Amino acid sequence: MNFCSHCGSDDIRLVVPDGDNRVRHVCGHCGSIHYSNPKIVTGCLPVWDDKVLLARRSIKPRQGFWNVPGGYMENGETVEEGARREVREEVLAEVEITGLHAIFSIPHINQVYMHFIGQLPAPDAFGSGEESLEVRLFSEAEIPWQEIAFTSSVYTLENYFADRKQGKPQLHIGQMEYKRS
Amino acid sequence: MNFCSHCGSDDIRLVVPDGDNRVRHVCGHCGSIHYSNPKIVTGCLPVWDDKVLLARRSIKPRQGFWNVPGGYMENGETVEEGARREVREEVLAEVEITGLHAIFSIPHINQVYMHFIGQLPAPDAFGSGEESLEVRLFSEAEIPWQEIAFTSSVYTLENYFADRKQGKPQLHIGQMEYKRS
Repeated sequence: MNFCSHCGSDDIRLVVPDGDNRVRHVCGHCGSIHYSNPKIVTGCLPVWDDKVLLARRSIKPRQGFWNVPGGYMENGETVEEGARREVREEVLAEVEITGLHAIFSIPHINQVYMHFIGQLPAPDAFGSGEESLEVRLFSEAEIPWQEIAFTSSVYTLENYFADRKQGKPQLHIGQMEYKRS
Repeated sequence: MNFCSHCGSDDIRLVVPDGDNRVRHVCGHCGSIHYSNPKIVTGCLPVWDDKVLLARRSIKPRQGFWNVPGGYMENGETVEEGARREVREEVLAEVEITGLHAIFSIPHINQVYMHFIGQLPAPDAFGSGEESLEVRLFSEAEIPWQEIAFTSSVYTLENYFADRKQGKPQLHIGQMEYKRS
């Protein structure tokens, strides 16, 4: 942040506002406090029988890698609506959400992933959206573990197949460990 | 948004960027896209025996009304860390989180509440933080339903006591209905 988005001043200071206990971007001219908070990445793992649907990313970052359909939650929607929208956009599918599967915080990049499980209506009821090079169903044995785009997707997939073995869907709450060197 | 926070230009346009499908604030001078996304309000209902701990707000909005301890999730923390921090700040307690209880989307103000349940270490192990006028334990019969600050807290409390009767803690996913007139 170089300029105040309210008054245009370049007098932006990193200070702790009165009554607060954290450093914020504050405008020295008009006093506006500019907060920054974590974003939600909402998504859904579409399933059919013993298989899950992944999308190969056509965009950066991690272009060419496989991912659980998802993206930034938008203003004006619920978490579930956002997850269904992302599935619709990336894998051209309409899923019936059956539950929330994973909440995965990534503190060092200020993101919280929320992954639902969604039932596909048919084994061929999907396609490649604009942000996907390819979309396909994978059994557990077929998952390309070395080509998964993000840690959040690895977390969701590992826990999904473990839950299946136990016949017990559940909510997993985790975080990415970040080793500061 | 009146000015670009990157270059200071006042040429801010509401347009759909290339490759996007939503209107964003875009700077006509430097091309920066300024996204706005929902915020997470993370919190926790501290419990002891058959009672729950609420805080009476000393600050606006809804000053003087009772609330489940919570507030905006901050950068650099996990959802659970944020919930414990809010409990520490507002009711001076250290809870052991036992599970996630409610996710409550409020699409028209771009918020997602996430409320955990937390065990108090002792029936008097709390106090009034700076943002609280008063903090106390309530049995279900004592809850001041007409003086609860926010719908998200009503949702959490109603579901908490219903779950208790059934002896079955579970995750509730809901949203605030907003009737456009």
